[in-house]
Amino acid sequence: MSAYFTEQNSANVVNERMAPDANPRLQHVMGALVSHLHAFIKEVQLRPEEWESAIRFLTETGKMCNEERQEFILLSDCLGLSMLVDAIHHRRPTGATENTVFGPFFVAGAPEKNMGDCISLDKKGELCLYEGQVKELNGQPIANARIHAWSDNDEGFYDVQQPEAQPKWNNRGVFTTGADGRYQFLGIKPVSYPIPDDGPVGKLLQQLGRHPYRPAHMHFMVEAPGYEKVITHTFVKGDSYLESDTVFGVKQSLIVEFEEIEHEQATWRSAFDFVLV
Amino acid sequence: MSAYFTEQNSANVVNERMAPDANPRLQHVMGALVSHLHAFIKEVQLRPEEWESAIRFLTETGKMCNEERQEFILLSDCLGLSMLVDAIHHRRPTGATENTVFGPFFVAGAPEKNMGDCISLDKKGELCLYEGQVKELNGQPIANARIHAWSDNDEGFYDVQQPEAQPKWNNRGVFTTGADGRYQFLGIKPVSYPIPDDGPVGKLLQQLGRHPYRPAHMHFMVEAPGYEKVITHTFVKGDSYLESDTVFGVKQSLIVEFEEIEHEQATWRSAFDFVLV
Repeated sequence: MSAYFTEQNSANVVNERMAPDANPRLQHVMGALVSHLHAFIKEVQLRPEEWESAIRFLTETGKMCNEERQEFILLSDCLGLSMLVDAIHHRRPTGATENTVFGPFFVAGAPEKNMGDCISLDKKGELCLYEGQVKELNGQPIANARIHAWSDNDEGFYDVQQPEAQPKWNNRGVFTTGADGRYQFLGIKPVSYPIPDDGPVGKLLQQLGRHPYRPAHMHFMVEAPGYEKVITHTFVKGDSYLESDTVFGVKQSLIVEFEEIEHEQATWRSAFDFVLV
Repeated sequence: MSAYFTEQNSANVVNERMAPDANPRLQHVMGALVSHLHAFIKEVQLRPEEWESAIRFLTETGKMCNEERQEFILLSDCLGLSMLVDAIHHRRPTGATENTVFGPFFVAGAPEKNMGDCISLDKKGELCLYEGQVKELNGQPIANARIHAWSDNDEGFYDVQQPEAQPKWNNRGVFTTGADGRYQFLGIKPVSYPIPDDGPVGKLLQQLGRHPYRPAHMHFMVEAPGYEKVITHTFVKGDSYLESDTVFGVKQSLIVEFEEIEHEQATWRSAFDFVLV
């Protein structure tokens, strides 16, 4: 064992300090983290003034966090780390509905609705008829599936971001399927919006020449007894940010055609089936 | 170009988002950081609940930072990242005095002293005669070298940590060499002490089965016109934390014999030459 730190043996010296009886999983995770961070510093020959910038950046990111704002999650999202953890833990067979990021705007306890109801309470924006089926990989419909749906309003804000300007539970609802597994409801055609970009993460995106936008999407969480829960969005086909979602949430299979229809209330229709494992 | 994120191409998709006209050094550093973080997550198959713990840990670390406390620097120190950046940027030929971490307790403006003066103002602790020479690699003495020295008190605290209990500038002084390059002063034989361990970093050390102690050391910063500045410590040979300094600051060449002597004031003597490049 080499007790003293040198540039060559740096990560080993740090990792050998962990006590043999420390939690094995913690040792594995921290050991790999230390090895990769040391390899990163060596690869770029990180300069003292860059190290100081990193300390300042992390400190400012911490200071930005409060009950309504989680700047470290934004950072993780914008570096693709959140999507990677999600991808690793939700590998599914071809044909099953893919996951994407949960996002910070889900609120538990949204009102239970009947099929055909409208989740837009202020009726602002263009209405869309969302419909489809919850089913198994073999096509069998799934009864008693609970579908949570939520979206921004026509200005790109969720109700919780505008508690004064929007009615509570605007653009949120929970639907339960019957024997045929089918669902149908009205909501607005969502619009693209920027993530909060007035903090350190927004500044970083700017320095990297990246925009802060997410393409328009409707959030879904679908759960049924005996099936793996799906947390996903459907994205509006044709949105100009589909290929540059700032949090990397888009998957090909989640892009959905929004077609213009003639309907007493809706001007759009979006069909999507949820396939559960 | 693959626009959509997948587990396989994750880091590439993130890095391809950087604008071609973004600062090239920033692109290089962020590209490498993203690649290593993605490789880390894949290597350990980081679990969603572990990702949540990491977000909480970073947030708490940020909340702990204030004007007197920099918890992210402590984190960097305890993972060996600070020493690695220092090592990379202070490679010196054999025989030259090695650098080590600066530490958070240096204060600019300490009193100028004459050779032979004592920097311990409260005379607590065991006095030691520090002496030696500032010289070039070829042995030539360096005149007009400024030697900044600072240490903790006999209870392990720097004056700035105890503004009420210690006189201002206790255990701090600046000395300027004459033509012979020699220096001599009195200070206490320093003692080992724990880094502040009542925050998230202290908790992490505990979970890893690591103690928070630094071996006893006297801080030095030596500068002379035309030479590279040296920021270093001398460590007390025989200290029980030499092989487990929690910030990895110890280098073999910086461990110094403290020998017992008979002297009107001092009971110890520590000889060390500073060799500048």
